[in-house]
Amino acid sequence: MSEKGQKVGKMFIVGFGPGSEDHITSRAKKVIEESNVIVGYTTYIELVRDLIRGKKIIYTGMTEEVDRAKKAIDIAKKGNTVVVISSGDAGIYGMAGLIFQVLKEDGWRPSYGLEVEVVPGVTALSAVGSLLGAPLMHDFASISLSDLLTPWEVILKRVEAAAQADFVIALYNPKSGRRTWQIVETQKMIRKYREGSTPVGIVKSAYRDGQNIIITDLDHMLDFPIGMLTTIIIGNSSTFTYEELMITPRGYHNKYELSMKKMALEVPLAVPE
Amino acid sequence: MSEKGQKVGKMFIVGFGPGSEDHITSRAKKVIEESNVIVGYTTYIELVRDLIRGKKIIYTGMTEEVDRAKKAIDIAKKGNTVVVISSGDAGIYGMAGLIFQVLKEDGWRPSYGLEVEVVPGVTALSAVGSLLGAPLMHDFASISLSDLLTPWEVILKRVEAAAQADFVIALYNPKSGRRTWQIVETQKMIRKYREGSTPVGIVKSAYRDGQNIIITDLDHMLDFPIGMLTTIIIGNSSTFTYEELMITPRGYHNKYELSMKKMALEVPLAVPE
Repeated sequence: MSEKGQKVGKMFIVGFGPGSEDHITSRAKKVIEESNVIVGYTTYIELVRDLIRGKKIIYTGMTEEVDRAKKAIDIAKKGNTVVVISSGDAGIYGMAGLIFQVLKEDGWRPSYGLEVEVVPGVTALSAVGSLLGAPLMHDFASISLSDLLTPWEVILKRVEAAAQADFVIALYNPKSGRRTWQIVETQKMIRKYREGSTPVGIVKSAYRDGQNIIITDLDHMLDFPIGMLTTIIIGNSSTFTYEELMITPRGYHNKYELSMKKMALEVPLAVPE
Repeated sequence: MSEKGQKVGKMFIVGFGPGSEDHITSRAKKVIEESNVIVGYTTYIELVRDLIRGKKIIYTGMTEEVDRAKKAIDIAKKGNTVVVISSGDAGIYGMAGLIFQVLKEDGWRPSYGLEVEVVPGVTALSAVGSLLGAPLMHDFASISLSDLLTPWEVILKRVEAAAQADFVIALYNPKSGRRTWQIVETQKMIRKYREGSTPVGIVKSAYRDGQNIIITDLDHMLDFPIGMLTTIIIGNSSTFTYEELMITPRGYHNKYELSMKKMALEVPLAVPE
């Protein structure tokens, strides 16, 4: 109850990870269980269908994020426990920011009878990285190629800065039915600074039905299908491939002696039976 | 069993998230349960103590990563199910890359009687972001300030590139007992390109005992304690603070009309009782 004796609403902004139930956190499951209303983009609702049986469900379309945020807040303010779901991490290109922006417009304060919690999840770059091997072991930049809300010049400047400074580069939203040339310009810009043989991982639908993993290189990445459900990781100057894996070493110094011969001598193991 | 009739070992490279059991994924818990050997840095082992009772546990120190990787592989090759644990996501500044590097040295192939799976987790930047509000809603760069394995010039170049291209910047390993000047140079470099009033979030021990959340700005960030357990997020040119929250809008266009007045008219709600 709030100070005024009103029923206190709760709003959880939840990232459920790549999509399979296996990769949802305990906290995300718990708050979904304890909620009575779920708000989300239709596709995401379908992905967590088994978890949300018996709840009031409010579906919204992909471009209706503002409407979704407003509905969720209004319902929570009436004393409900509302979960707004995003895939991946709600704080990375998800719903968290927009909800706080709407709350601010509404004059919300933590003491106003509406509790808000962001529940972090496994973001797409972690999910995709785990399927590719270990491409994100060194500094990386995450860039969305969607220019709906950001001018293309800003995005391309980021691509160039990241390429020049040898960041591993993760590309979210690389291409859609309408946005097709952005990934072409991006590849061209990165190619200015990196070898054509730089490893590139292209993952569609990580941990979902239709999962597809491709490891190729910068010169050939555009020969493969790239779409709405694809995340791309472009290696840095040290990234290498090995046995269908994409691996970025942790540093540039050759500090480590990795010889297994040396290992055999060094490590008297106490192995369990 | 492998083709040669040997017992097949399994190796899981697991990120358990920020540290509290709440934020571990189901998959991570499941493979920990099914394993018989756990290998990890002592501090991490302590964080998941409740999950690993009854297992053979191999502790190693923080600087003994290579030794840890070699031990884990050797034990798994003997037919054990081994979990190597990292905090956060094992693929982001974690153990995944090093293990694959050692496996490569060993001539490992997927058919060699040793299965390897990377289990993704909630990385520190997601955990920290969720506690700060929504600072990572737009393109971001993740940079480790540890110059043990990477020349400082490379790191500082990345800081500059990220600052110049208006990335939100997440800093891992900002400072330790010995490394104290790197964060000072970093702040100075970013300040060249961003206002002193740019919001900065400093989070210690996210979701662990001793958690501490500070929201300050670029000009004052060095006035606060920063250490080994701290992750820092520096906003981009659009990031703002509101009620102890740090929020980065999703774009630069003012596409969204967020007025709640408009909302009240637009949204006839079907609210559950």
